[in-house]
Amino acid sequence: MKVVVLAGGVGGAKLADGIARILPPEDVTIIVNTGDDFEHAGLTICPDLDTVMYRLAGVANDETGWGRTGETWRTISEVTALGGPDWFRLGDLDLATHLTRTHLLKQGETLTAVTHHLCAQLGIDVTVLPMSNQPAPTQIQSGDTVYPFQTWFVQERWQPPVKEVVLPEDVRATQAVIRAFETADLVFIAPSNPFVSIDPILNVYPIRALMMDLPQAIIAVSPIVGGQAVKGPAAKMMQELGLPPTSRTIADYYNELIDGFVYDVQDAGSCDDLGIETRCLNTMMHNEADRIRLAKEVMQFAEALLTLN
Amino acid sequence: MKVVVLAGGVGGAKLADGIARILPPEDVTIIVNTGDDFEHAGLTICPDLDTVMYRLAGVANDETGWGRTGETWRTISEVTALGGPDWFRLGDLDLATHLTRTHLLKQGETLTAVTHHLCAQLGIDVTVLPMSNQPAPTQIQSGDTVYPFQTWFVQERWQPPVKEVVLPEDVRATQAVIRAFETADLVFIAPSNPFVSIDPILNVYPIRALMMDLPQAIIAVSPIVGGQAVKGPAAKMMQELGLPPTSRTIADYYNELIDGFVYDVQDAGSCDDLGIETRCLNTMMHNEADRIRLAKEVMQFAEALLTLN
Repeated sequence: MKVVVLAGGVGGAKLADGIARILPPEDVTIIVNTGDDFEHAGLTICPDLDTVMYRLAGVANDETGWGRTGETWRTISEVTALGGPDWFRLGDLDLATHLTRTHLLKQGETLTAVTHHLCAQLGIDVTVLPMSNQPAPTQIQSGDTVYPFQTWFVQERWQPPVKEVVLPEDVRATQAVIRAFETADLVFIAPSNPFVSIDPILNVYPIRALMMDLPQAIIAVSPIVGGQAVKGPAAKMMQELGLPPTSRTIADYYNELIDGFVYDVQDAGSCDDLGIETRCLNTMMHNEADRIRLAKEVMQFAEALLTLN
Repeated sequence: MKVVVLAGGVGGAKLADGIARILPPEDVTIIVNTGDDFEHAGLTICPDLDTVMYRLAGVANDETGWGRTGETWRTISEVTALGGPDWFRLGDLDLATHLTRTHLLKQGETLTAVTHHLCAQLGIDVTVLPMSNQPAPTQIQSGDTVYPFQTWFVQERWQPPVKEVVLPEDVRATQAVIRAFETADLVFIAPSNPFVSIDPILNVYPIRALMMDLPQAIIAVSPIVGGQAVKGPAAKMMQELGLPPTSRTIADYYNELIDGFVYDVQDAGSCDDLGIETRCLNTMMHNEADRIRLAKEVMQFAEALLTLN
């Protein structure tokens, strides 16, 4: 069974890792948000791709949720001493990824090819695809200010209230991404932020249309648990956008796209009457065992759902 | 007395440091070759500026002659692991300079302003000026191949024989550089490689013409000692260019530009009949005391020469 996972940062990377650990590698494709990629001090930085790669490679930092385990901070400390740009915390190991990626991009390679190279070097055997080879910058409008995503997310610590998430026009998916959808038996929307992790992927032409047309099952896993985002600004953004921060809101938001919805046991009973199949599970992934468990449970749900269809 | 020093890499940085340590900071301007600057993995790297800055800041690596003391190599080791570009050995501390510089350049600052910023952060109180704010890439022709300078110098370890040093056209000096020459009482050509450190500076319009017109004394210090370059490819290049690798050749090479010439005691007697004033000194600078001693001696020579004129 060919599985595609749409993933943003931390939560998406965790579910992707669980799926990668229970299925044959050739059956798993992770399509990753690149809307929060940015140029920083000359380097091309792809935070979600890195989070997914580091998690799949087993080198993710479990404490921070981003970056690498065993990371050190010698360079960025010296950047501070030199009055340089230190708001984005570049770790010494992490920097190697950015340098290698930037070098290969400058050599004319596509982001897809570069990601393939980095995954191979990191020993990752599933397929990780950026949603597009084109820049596709997400912006955050707050009041009259439009922030580049990382400025809002990291430099401003996602504090400026969100009026609108501004996504770019005319971004196209790669052939590899389109082929992954066309051959998928199952698509998971990982428990990532719907506005700034998943929407940027759906916004890439023709991904939303492909997903609408897919005969196969699409299952979303809620990133909201007990009215809170497990990590990051999802719940805060929902309130600012006038949406109740609940799993039910997430299900409604994906409504026409999805065939199944997974939400947390803390919200038991809240999504009983959605009109689609649901499964109430423990969606918290504190460690590898949790990731594998949840992956198995969502796969069981998916298989049941495919049998129904 | 206002002093300008033209400097390339290691040897130039050492004499510049000696001069900086014996004169009031407001009287010293170091004009640095930027012909071997290059873009690498997205970063703008200025090897000679860095060598001069690190030396003046007291953080130069005395063992290697380049880079910083106490340097570590965590990032570049990981770049190797990721199959990235590791032929240029980026140290963890050194990377902070490149990131800060690249960031400020991308913000629209000039290389002159960026250098001023970095010098201030490093506690350097003399003036360090890049020869130009424009890119001015030196290239090395070897047979039919034209190498970017750092490719030849670092990646190829300066082994391909030099047929010609190719300097760019239409590079202009900054106003700060022109003003430094116009107000100088004395110009030193540091013991740097004449072909790839000093010529690239002289090639920047209108530096050569300004120096020809200068009423003030210009004194060169030979980088060749006992038929060898103290460091780097100068002697090898001279042989490949059909020039005897001697101090005398250096004096002849600078001939019309200079009023005085300093060469090493190992070559005593070899430059007696040049038709300009010469001084035979111990030019080897192994440590700070040597740098200060040589600086004092060349200043005494300069003062004698200015009295003569």
